[in-house]
Amino acid sequence: MIQGIGAATGVAIGKAFVLPHWELDLPDSEMDAVDLAKEFERLYEGIRTSKNEIEYIKNEFKEMVGHEESQIFDAHLAILEDPVFMNEIQGIIERQYKAAEVAVKEAIDHFVSMFDLLDDEYMKERALDIKDVGNRLLKHLLGAPEVKLPADTQPYILVAKELSPSQLVHLNPSHVLGIVTMTGGKTSHSAIMARALGIPLVSGIENKLEKPIQTGEHLVVDGDEGLLYLEPDTLIVERYEGIRDQQRKKKEQLQLLATVDAVTKDGTYFNLAANMNSVKELDIALKNGAKGVGLFRTEFLYMDRHNFPTEEEQFEVYKLVAENAGKASVVIRTLDIGGDKQLDYFALPEEENPFLGYRAIRISLDRTELFQTQLSAILQASAYGNVKIMYPMISSVEEVKQANVVLRRAMADLDRRGIAYNPDIKVGIMIEVPAAVTISDLLAEETDFFSIGTNDLVQYVLAVDRMNEQIAHMYHPFHPAVLRMLRTTVEAAHEAGIPVSVCGELAGDERAIPLWLELGVQDLSMSPQSLLRVKHRILNTNAAEAKGEAAACFKLRTSSAVEERLSAFAERSSYLNGTNGTDSTAS
Amino acid sequence: MIQGIGAATGVAIGKAFVLPHWELDLPDSEMDAVDLAKEFERLYEGIRTSKNEIEYIKNEFKEMVGHEESQIFDAHLAILEDPVFMNEIQGIIERQYKAAEVAVKEAIDHFVSMFDLLDDEYMKERALDIKDVGNRLLKHLLGAPEVKLPADTQPYILVAKELSPSQLVHLNPSHVLGIVTMTGGKTSHSAIMARALGIPLVSGIENKLEKPIQTGEHLVVDGDEGLLYLEPDTLIVERYEGIRDQQRKKKEQLQLLATVDAVTKDGTYFNLAANMNSVKELDIALKNGAKGVGLFRTEFLYMDRHNFPTEEEQFEVYKLVAENAGKASVVIRTLDIGGDKQLDYFALPEEENPFLGYRAIRISLDRTELFQTQLSAILQASAYGNVKIMYPMISSVEEVKQANVVLRRAMADLDRRGIAYNPDIKVGIMIEVPAAVTISDLLAEETDFFSIGTNDLVQYVLAVDRMNEQIAHMYHPFHPAVLRMLRTTVEAAHEAGIPVSVCGELAGDERAIPLWLELGVQDLSMSPQSLLRVKHRILNTNAAEAKGEAAACFKLRTSSAVEERLSAFAERSSYLNGTNGTDSTAS
Repeated sequence: MIQGIGAATGVAIGKAFVLPHWELDLPDSEMDAVDLAKEFERLYEGIRTSKNEIEYIKNEFKEMVGHEESQIFDAHLAILEDPVFMNEIQGIIERQYKAAEVAVKEAIDHFVSMFDLLDDEYMKERALDIKDVGNRLLKHLLGAPEVKLPADTQPYILVAKELSPSQLVHLNPSHVLGIVTMTGGKTSHSAIMARALGIPLVSGIENKLEKPIQTGEHLVVDGDEGLLYLEPDTLIVERYEGIRDQQRKKKEQLQLLATVDAVTKDGTYFNLAANMNSVKELDIALKNGAKGVGLFRTEFLYMDRHNFPTEEEQFEVYKLVAENAGKASVVIRTLDIGGDKQLDYFALPEEENPFLGYRAIRISLDRTELFQTQLSAILQASAYGNVKIMYPMISSVEEVKQANVVLRRAMADLDRRGIAYNPDIKVGIMIEVPAAVTISDLLAEETDFFSIGTNDLVQYVLAVDRMNEQIAHMYHPFHPAVLRMLRTTVEAAHEAGIPVSVCGELAGDERAIPLWLELGVQDLSMSPQSLLRVKHRILNTNAAEAKGEAAACFKLRTSSAVEERLSAFAERSSYLNGTNGTDSTAS
Repeated sequence: MIQGIGAATGVAIGKAFVLPHWELDLPDSEMDAVDLAKEFERLYEGIRTSKNEIEYIKNEFKEMVGHEESQIFDAHLAILEDPVFMNEIQGIIERQYKAAEVAVKEAIDHFVSMFDLLDDEYMKERALDIKDVGNRLLKHLLGAPEVKLPADTQPYILVAKELSPSQLVHLNPSHVLGIVTMTGGKTSHSAIMARALGIPLVSGIENKLEKPIQTGEHLVVDGDEGLLYLEPDTLIVERYEGIRDQQRKKKEQLQLLATVDAVTKDGTYFNLAANMNSVKELDIALKNGAKGVGLFRTEFLYMDRHNFPTEEEQFEVYKLVAENAGKASVVIRTLDIGGDKQLDYFALPEEENPFLGYRAIRISLDRTELFQTQLSAILQASAYGNVKIMYPMISSVEEVKQANVVLRRAMADLDRRGIAYNPDIKVGIMIEVPAAVTISDLLAEETDFFSIGTNDLVQYVLAVDRMNEQIAHMYHPFHPAVLRMLRTTVEAAHEAGIPVSVCGELAGDERAIPLWLELGVQDLSMSPQSLLRVKHRILNTNAAEAKGEAAACFKLRTSSAVEERLSAFAERSSYLNGTNGTDSTAS
């Protein structure tokens, strides 16, 4: 038994397939001048093929994992269009009469060593990108074979030193039971991908193996605990078969809850809606019983394009979602770019602290022509369903008023054009900046509803960027200050008589259910994948008891005390066998 | 009359001295192989001279402007030690038999064009640095003369296309009455420097001149309004002589207040202490009547070194300040690096959002050996004066407890070593993270005093990085949310019976005085330069009336409404002729 890192949950039992290592075999480095034109032709052909391949992988990756993650490939494409890198390669071919692959190799080595020397993290990442892309180009020039995974064999457990995104894209979950990688951790691209595909993954075992794993060796992969068993005995295999079957059964049981109302044992109803990043997620949201869309992120409409989407293009998407949601409400959040989200065709300034920068409503109010186009498209869709508008990153009363001026302009324009829309459309705001919490009573008078975005709120309240590994342990959604801010916001909404929902990740964390009961929040919006898990916990919760727990939590002085108390309560109220009280992917 | 940008306040009247432009004159590019060794020798000599020069400028700059600003020169020094850049130069000399200056020129051009092509702001800045440093090196290789400013002439108004930090360093305020630059704005290095030196500066007039200004031309520079007068008539000169004399008189009048108590017309006392960035500022703080040091920033002790300062080195500095402050208290803030402050010898991780990252107490609690050394030095100094300890960036009760564990360890260690210290030393915290405000009642039970750091607090509460030009207009210290957070903090302190002071820039903004009166804050700490200005306004304020204004402000819904009301009140209560109600450098 080897202890590694559990990078994607689940259990796999089967035989190893070890991915062979691919080595470069460079030709002699000299050639005749007469071959120059041919070498250039080979180079260009290689670049074209590489680009097509990257585009393909990017799209596959995006389908499976998401837009944001797929953007790493844009950097790769950019390198193949980089004049400095290409000049370097061409120069070596031209002046030194070297074969294209030799020139590519030399150029990679030159740039990588140069960037490495600069001793700068940013540069080192650039060096890695160049290496990746350069190796792909080299592979095409050398005609090296793509390592193929066995497709027609028995399902297997894939073992590799590391997996590149391009290898992962070709994985077929019905063939690959589990994955073991020597390097990598929870945040690697392989891990993100494996989790999206639902394939158990244990990584980071490089220095723990006595000898290399061989193809055909029997393995058990325990992605929950990060364990790998080599040639396990019957007892272990039987134990894990039991766990695996239980996990499957639990999944099936959960799916039965899709059509059940989310109501506590003692009769408190919740309205569980879905957060959506793309139109594709609508199916799974409906399949998992979502009551409408609590947060429709519109960024995807603006990404992977060469210009801003037109009113018509946006309208079609909003309309589609509105129609499919039936009577349930669809809350469309206006564009939230900036921060960590960029658009290729809209150059945002380089910022020291992008999270404290030019983003979301700040951009919309600065570029009102873009904003009006989006509002106009949303308004048109409001004729086809229960559509609502939500402004992100609001920090002042003025911003709401300014945004509403643009909204009224969009309405007047639609009137002029004789286009139908709902003139009583509800307009709400995200509560995610601390200032918005502090003046939530003032903001409640200006808007129709609140939605609390806990992800950003926690980051700002604690001054902790959760993507920063150095301090990620300080990101505490259960910090007493966060709890108090939730209470301030909810009380302000109740006082003003407007609805308040929660749409950050905390909404998908079952441990937080007692907080919502105590505060009187009944609208939660979460990723479609979390809906059934949360509903299951709600069905199993006694509201009166949970409120008592939460009330006690509001008196605690530290994050860990709150988290421990809520975790213990969640643990006690789980009724399905093998259900874990907490879910690490949601916290 | 030409309207430019008022980059440093004040009025100057005098004759122009136009700084001539310096052009490169490169030698023939070929040379004999026999000269190789000589060329290398010349190159190394040029690098040595350039480094010495940069070191010198850096130190001068630091003395006048501050540590943080002087760090731009570290990037310049690093380039002269960059192996990639140096290899490129040496390669050109060696392989192409070119003179050192030609090689330097070609290497600069190569790197600059390469970085420019990458179309990345970060790279473009690197390109600028390389250009700056390369030109300095070139200048030494070519033996080009440093442009000297006239030192033995009548005082003059300096006119230049732009001024480099190295030229600014040599300015003598008694010779330079004012400055006019064609390019640049309020945030340029020349502007920072001119303000530090108290020299009026108007910039950004490049496209507004019909013909170039000539040396000897009569000028009036109005840095307050950003105006430049060419060959002004007698009336204008007389008017500006009047303004200049009034400004001088006001300065003298203010200085008379140094020994006066800061008390409102109706008898409310304030305690005005100084924020200090270095030991040097102690003199001016005392000269301006500071009652102790409300915020002693210790970063300077750690900067411009090759390793962490020892306990002894720190102790000497803390002791010096403690002794000089007499009975008044000296609040020493423990190390606040990270964010935008870096140390050469302590590699901090590259961060996406450093303000939300690994900084201040987070580093201290992670690197407790460094922290204990500092606490130990502060404790020792507590035997020589009224020294207090303050922890920065506190966001939870746990952090205070953890810090106090290290403090007690330091005390126990001093006991063992038989070294004296004040065992009852007061230990307080900065309130600058929104979470700290929200749980200020809990924190008040754990600490001896609060000091509100408005600069960071405003940034976090509004999610606005004020150094980010794109959104700097959203940085509102008078935002209703900020006002409410001030109130929450002060009330928690009063409830717990602990002192609370304000040490952010808002403390030095006279317009905020009514807020402090209304909240019941009497301890303010500010830059030594602000002390007399604020005291003057306090002396002229009626506390009862001011409280009424502030109470009304707490009911306003927008930043601009609050700011307008407080500005108008400040305007009304100014009694010295020509005193401007607001001071743009303090807001």
